[in-house]
Amino acid sequence: MVSPLNPLLEEALPEKDETAGIQKPLRLLKHVPEDPVPLIELANHSIVSTRQFTAEQVVQLARLAAKHEAVPQQARRPLVGKILISAFYEPSTRTRLSFESAWHRLGGDIMSITDPATTGIAKGESYADVGEMLNNYGDLVVLRETNDKAIYQMMESLRIPIVNAGNGIEEHPTQALADMYTLFKWRPALMDKDIEKTKKARIGIIGVPANMRTVRSLLYMLALFHNSFEEVVIFCNEKQVFAEHQLENLTEMGLNIRISIDLNADLPSLDVIYINSIAWIGDDYKEYGQEYSLSKKSPIKKGAIVMHPLARGKELSTDLDNTPHNWYFAQARGAVFVRMALLTCLVQHNW
Amino acid sequence: MVSPLNPLLEEALPEKDETAGIQKPLRLLKHVPEDPVPLIELANHSIVSTRQFTAEQVVQLARLAAKHEAVPQQARRPLVGKILISAFYEPSTRTRLSFESAWHRLGGDIMSITDPATTGIAKGESYADVGEMLNNYGDLVVLRETNDKAIYQMMESLRIPIVNAGNGIEEHPTQALADMYTLFKWRPALMDKDIEKTKKARIGIIGVPANMRTVRSLLYMLALFHNSFEEVVIFCNEKQVFAEHQLENLTEMGLNIRISIDLNADLPSLDVIYINSIAWIGDDYKEYGQEYSLSKKSPIKKGAIVMHPLARGKELSTDLDNTPHNWYFAQARGAVFVRMALLTCLVQHNW
Amino acid sequence: MVSPLNPLLEEALPEKDETAGIQKPLRLLKHVPEDPVPLIELANHSIVSTRQFTAEQVVQLARLAAKHEAVPQQARRPLVGKILISAFYEPSTRTRLSFESAWHRLGGDIMSITDPATTGIAKGESYADVGEMLNNYGDLVVLRETNDKAIYQMMESLRIPIVNAGNGIEEHPTQALADMYTLFKWRPALMDKDIEKTKKARIGIIGVPANMRTVRSLLYMLALFHNSFEEVVIFCNEKQVFAEHQLENLTEMGLNIRISIDLNADLPSLDVIYINSIAWIGDDYKEYGQEYSLSKKSPIKKGAIVMHPLARGKELSTDLDNTPHNWYFAQARGAVFVRMALLTCLVQHNW
Repeated sequence: MVSPLNPLLEEALPEKDETAGIQKPLRLLKHVPEDPVPLIELANHSIVSTRQFTAEQVVQLARLAAKHEAVPQQARRPLVGKILISAFYEPSTRTRLSFESAWHRLGGDIMSITDPATTGIAKGESYADVGEMLNNYGDLVVLRETNDKAIYQMMESLRIPIVNAGNGIEEHPTQALADMYTLFKWRPALMDKDIEKTKKARIGIIGVPANMRTVRSLLYMLALFHNSFEEVVIFCNEKQVFAEHQLENLTEMGLNIRISIDLNADLPSLDVIYINSIAWIGDDYKEYGQEYSLSKKSPIKKGAIVMHPLARGKELSTDLDNTPHNWYFAQARGAVFVRMALLTCLVQHNW
Repeated sequence: MVSPLNPLLEEALPEKDETAGIQKPLRLLKHVPEDPVPLIELANHSIVSTRQFTAEQVVQLARLAAKHEAVPQQARRPLVGKILISAFYEPSTRTRLSFESAWHRLGGDIMSITDPATTGIAKGESYADVGEMLNNYGDLVVLRETNDKAIYQMMESLRIPIVNAGNGIEEHPTQALADMYTLFKWRPALMDKDIEKTKKARIGIIGVPANMRTVRSLLYMLALFHNSFEEVVIFCNEKQVFAEHQLENLTEMGLNIRISIDLNADLPSLDVIYINSIAWIGDDYKEYGQEYSLSKKSPIKKGAIVMHPLARGKELSTDLDNTPHNWYFAQARGAVFVRMALLTCLVQHNW
Repeated sequence: MVSPLNPLLEEALPEKDETAGIQKPLRLLKHVPEDPVPLIELANHSIVSTRQFTAEQVVQLARLAAKHEAVPQQARRPLVGKILISAFYEPSTRTRLSFESAWHRLGGDIMSITDPATTGIAKGESYADVGEMLNNYGDLVVLRETNDKAIYQMMESLRIPIVNAGNGIEEHPTQALADMYTLFKWRPALMDKDIEKTKKARIGIIGVPANMRTVRSLLYMLALFHNSFEEVVIFCNEKQVFAEHQLENLTEMGLNIRISIDLNADLPSLDVIYINSIAWIGDDYKEYGQEYSLSKKSPIKKGAIVMHPLARGKELSTDLDNTPHNWYFAQARGAVFVRMALLTCLVQHNW
């Protein structure tokens, strides 16, 4: 008569995850030789935009991330005694935990600001004064703010590095680094300057470059590796697809961009599909994806991968989770290792 | 004319606490021999229900807790480099700090979620997706949630252990472990399978088994040691005292249960009185105890102990604090050591 | 056509800050010999009021702070394994981060309470019960509370030290310690009992001693060193400048106090100007400073320093930031080192 326990409770946890794309990233590690020089240049810099990086830096950051992911139980704790100020004036549990996990895994301590209402900003303090204050309390600041100008105003007084974790609709550079890391793990040849034609990829992006910070940052990154991407197809039926000069800039950098409104027509020829859910419009956001969604029924090419910065809404069906197309979980997982790589470079370079 | 300082400020803090029950738990430690086998079985498991434990596991967890309490200044920090995700979607400072203190004392790092409004859940993300995310960020999750199903949904994707810190009205297993630890410190013979008749205890519980998670979890624990408890008296005048099958299950497990509505008539014969204050009714709660309360005037048996999961309301008078009946402070204190014991077993077993 | 990056992003961070007053405090360190005895007396004490300190303790705390500031990269982490409970029932990011940074730099772990609505207090729990609870969870409590009686009620049950981080309008003793540290770095002779007449300072305070806790605490501190301050001028045109007995007490302690309503008339003869922005009136506050404000145009004496507990409002113009009068940034910076000094003394004395 004693009712049975939930079956989940009767056995130990699964030993490992079998989801596609979650595997030790040794292929990436073996594909490129280590070169510390591009990373040393990052020491003591703030990161606000993807446009600050060279292709060599992105490759070496991905390589360092792969090293962290391949050897997770490393005893080294290079940031012991260093303090992260994790300032999420625009709340975000996912991104905050990703950064904080990265910092903790490196041995550092953390102070979090999660309730903007309790800060001086809410009482009229200037961002420059906040920056001056933060100099005294920590070794690095991670900031998410709806106000895209805030990070620049803080930098006027900051003497410790700050990392942009999303500033309004402008940029989200560490997400773009995580995206590139995922792409490089999937197909290491994408890192090659002299990539073979057969290795080049066609990537589709479901999103609005004009006002989605993840898309904006990713496009700049792809432009750095424009030779590796035959075509970038933007799926978008908004009136304003691009911000002023955005398309011209990307094209000038060498990226081959096309706009499409028919997802299913293009899907069979795409190697990578990057789908987003949330579009920031000013201080508010709107869901995106009623028109464009992916499921097991979508005509996705065999071997193609699906990426998503998460959290997802209805645009990405859970029935794809257990298919080899699912690289969005690997993407989220890799983001922690990419952030470990970047943060170590910014505050010290004894890796 | 300078006004005198508050007398509390003129001297150092008291050297130790003289409250009944707060003493080095050496009697428990000496009463049972160490046996690591039952604890090794807990490695890499999630804890949702008290029904997952064997009597041997509860005894050895209590013994390990006693070891932590008896030798608090141990230099060992077995969880250095391990990250706890402390997710209190239903806010609770007391339980959160108890878990976090346990983890910190073991050397680990912590990331807290204290504001459910900032999480993806509030924006419609599924618990399974949250679980998938948390896999990447930490080594163990502690979850309190008003929605009693949430923990099961997270477990569908979790590959790291999760510990239930209260799920709706269902269970609160670590509170029950702390309760047993308190009982075992008070009378170590209660751990014996072949307990002498004179050592058996009669316990009264003021609360509603149907919808109080602390009572539900405790009753399952008592049933594991049913031979040690002559009688369990439930003081309750609600219409629905038990949930469906609850009384039958407990009786079948061997527990001798009686319902009473007259506290003062039974008090003189009870060895243990366990009093609660809050009953969860759906998403809301109601105070419980207008009818049943304890004070120095209550006819409590000499040598009997009073327990309470705290925080208390008016049902438990402060005039009992300085009497030998007060074991509720010892109970709260012991909860930290019990959690240290459990958490170490779940994430690694090099104790 | 690619738009240029923000110039702030093109170069590494400035190597050091050139603001006045931010310099290694070696002069202070050399001016007084080390004497551990007054600090040993602080072990295991709670700090609620500036009136608990002797002049010798304030001098030695400043000296220890100077040691921390002069040698910031010290490898010692004396508080490893110690837990701070950072309880900001009245939210304050600035003061919270200052305390937490101090504790982390000493190697300790932290649990924060930043949302009073989630605590037992909000549900009617007594402060004494909260204190009893906190005994079990940490090694030291830092409390900010609008209710000025709360700290005394907690102390009735606390057996670990508590530090007052602002209790209503009553006191804010660590701010006053930081203020004295700033003054001593500026002019070490102020620490001398037999100070030369030419080294004595005239200090002006813009604020309301009756109901500003920073001013109340500072005045008690200045009274400890009354021989070093020729005159303290209070700029205030409120009806009630002093609380009952406050002026008499300070005068009796030896402080030479004068009230003025004409800031610009007195400015040219002041060596130190201490300006505040917020006055607590009961549970609410009002901005102060419409009448009294400082800018580059103010007739500040050459060599005089301006102090402010921050965050600032309109009363303190940013045009003073790059002048040698700006010691308010140094004051905020020094507060971390003063708190490091104090916290180490309270919980252990192996410095």
